[in-house]
Amino acid sequence: MDNDFVTLQNILEAKERLQGVSRYTPLEPSEILSKKTGAHVFIKLENLQKTGSFKLRGAYNKISVLAQEAAQGVVAASAGNHAQGVAFASSQVGISATIVMPEGAPITKIESTKALGADVVLSGQGYDDAFRKAQEIQHENGAVFVHAFDDPLVIAGQGTIGLEILEELPDLDAVVVPIGGGGLIAGVACAIKEKRPEVQVIGVEAAGAPCMLEAFKSGAVHELKSANTIADGIAVRRPGDLTFNMARKYVDQIVTVDDEEIAWAILMLLESSKLMVEGAGAVGIAALLHKKCDLSGKKVAVIISGGNIDVNVISIIIERGLVKAGRYLRFKTILTDKPGSLQKLLSALANFGANVISIVHDRIKPNVPLKQAEVEISLETRNASHISQIVESLGKMGYELDILR
Amino acid sequence: MDNDFVTLQNILEAKERLQGVSRYTPLEPSEILSKKTGAHVFIKLENLQKTGSFKLRGAYNKISVLAQEAAQGVVAASAGNHAQGVAFASSQVGISATIVMPEGAPITKIESTKALGADVVLSGQGYDDAFRKAQEIQHENGAVFVHAFDDPLVIAGQGTIGLEILEELPDLDAVVVPIGGGGLIAGVACAIKEKRPEVQVIGVEAAGAPCMLEAFKSGAVHELKSANTIADGIAVRRPGDLTFNMARKYVDQIVTVDDEEIAWAILMLLESSKLMVEGAGAVGIAALLHKKCDLSGKKVAVIISGGNIDVNVISIIIERGLVKAGRYLRFKTILTDKPGSLQKLLSALANFGANVISIVHDRIKPNVPLKQAEVEISLETRNASHISQIVESLGKMGYELDILR
Repeated sequence: MDNDFVTLQNILEAKERLQGVSRYTPLEPSEILSKKTGAHVFIKLENLQKTGSFKLRGAYNKISVLAQEAAQGVVAASAGNHAQGVAFASSQVGISATIVMPEGAPITKIESTKALGADVVLSGQGYDDAFRKAQEIQHENGAVFVHAFDDPLVIAGQGTIGLEILEELPDLDAVVVPIGGGGLIAGVACAIKEKRPEVQVIGVEAAGAPCMLEAFKSGAVHELKSANTIADGIAVRRPGDLTFNMARKYVDQIVTVDDEEIAWAILMLLESSKLMVEGAGAVGIAALLHKKCDLSGKKVAVIISGGNIDVNVISIIIERGLVKAGRYLRFKTILTDKPGSLQKLLSALANFGANVISIVHDRIKPNVPLKQAEVEISLETRNASHISQIVESLGKMGYELDILR
Repeated sequence: MDNDFVTLQNILEAKERLQGVSRYTPLEPSEILSKKTGAHVFIKLENLQKTGSFKLRGAYNKISVLAQEAAQGVVAASAGNHAQGVAFASSQVGISATIVMPEGAPITKIESTKALGADVVLSGQGYDDAFRKAQEIQHENGAVFVHAFDDPLVIAGQGTIGLEILEELPDLDAVVVPIGGGGLIAGVACAIKEKRPEVQVIGVEAAGAPCMLEAFKSGAVHELKSANTIADGIAVRRPGDLTFNMARKYVDQIVTVDDEEIAWAILMLLESSKLMVEGAGAVGIAALLHKKCDLSGKKVAVIISGGNIDVNVISIIIERGLVKAGRYLRFKTILTDKPGSLQKLLSALANFGANVISIVHDRIKPNVPLKQAEVEISLETRNASHISQIVESLGKMGYELDILR
């Protein structure tokens, strides 16, 4: 079936294979998201899937089928979730796996992949280099290459998420699905449209990597020059050929969200739903929160595709989310370096109802005139209009503010 | 029943009242925690409770009972979860609530409490000041004061968590419960011991605020001089009198965990379980991970009491957790300020398999000799022995390291 469309039957077979292997993840109603968006929102929590993302579904479906012919094991290239999915699936099936990851990949991801029993090879500076190295290894030792998305068995595996959603929410109106290379949406859209053609399928891409949207517009697959987004799981420059053809058949609409919208969604899920979601996993919520598609009053399932975020960057993402939400203000200003001048500024801020998060007070910076001191202040604020008030009032009091970011 | 012990009957009545009000939260098996601790670990997810913590159970049980006599509404003092619990319960019952919070309380918590319909009064510098102000308000307007823990109806409400755990896991061997003022453990221990006396009940306090442990040791309630812990939800200086008496009857053991252990547990729950848990909510996991009590082979329910962490401090907590786990190294060193010297250091680090997270390179610091530059580097590392290797090797290469924290 190599270049054929995936069928509902293929997805049903995948479901059989995945029985007892993948977790049947919760589909939770979200009161807070429903209130904020006007839709009846349910979230499908693939961040709680084994290995922290949906990827093991496709990987296991592929690897369990080719177990006989893959005596030399499998090889894959990935900087992220596919690595762990393939490693997990191979260990379940009992064949060896070699995963090529770019040098400088997060150590946690390397260690997790090794802990699942795979051999990890570090090579090159990014995914493309790792991909070439994986193909080299395949040619050398005859291992079977497992593609991250453009493979009918992988797509069929991801499609099982669509079946689970339909089982739990048979009367849904729409499903919102992240798009990277297109494997997830191709499978899910096929499962859902073949069973309930009237359900809307909406794909969401990062604005910095809109490869499927571009393919939709031009009617053919192209490679983007770059893919820049904090949602590293969907920073893909070229969608699959098969996934494109399936998406064209089954997907109703593709929308995009930018990094600030994604950061805000991650923050919201963390604070309000107490869930850790990676950038790629949060794009559906970002699209709903920012009304990229009109779903008010509709019963909507949003796929949260994964939760494997690098904790070393989470603070940056939280800060971007807070800035976008108007809950964070950072500025520099110059104070006369005499007793009481910092205190005067701080008491003004307290009167405005802002909370000081941090202060850096620097009297010895080379570019600050003598008798003056530079102070950098981070504030917790209520919202964007609160920030405007503070900035305006400080201006009237004579402070010159250099607002950071 | 004001000064009486809470009975199982009281808790069963609370359960009736809470039907359809509080969420019956999931009790999830945790593979990763079981593997790490050797126990069969189940986590009771009160961080997914409405308002983000268990507190609404007790507050609602109290407020729904006194609805008739509380024509003037209720008043409470809280910097955290109790505020939202009381606000939510009051709005459900349809009476007014005034919550006194310390000035400088996180703006998110103030806004969430207001959003639940309560009047928020900001007063004083900490909980004690807020408590006094709440009592003043009570005297002035005749509102009913709702204590955060030392109240039989509040305790009975929290006890419903014990009933839910027994329903889902009738054959458990032990339950691990955070202790602040003692309301949660008094209720849960009563529910469990009255039904299954052989189940072990283990309480966990922050090492910086061991008020119940001190009371156990001396046989009487005292006030600690201070309560310092990142687990602000259990930073309590004096346990309740009723909660102490109940804990003395029902609790088998109290253990403590320090801030580093708590930070590591928060990090683990975030990374491995994709759950946002506050410090107070993570102490049970911290106790298990650090073998504070011997539960290997046992079926253990750990109560994750809440998830309302201030996102402005999460990055600090993650960093402390990474340091404790040996996954983060930050140091300063002096370089000769000539081309290539930074590059030489960085290529050494790459050879050690460490990832650079950030570099601050400062040539103009006043205390650094001319022709030299100070560089501050943060690294992602594998574990403690990896850190030792790096430090030793850099030492042999002639770098003098100033290791930060």
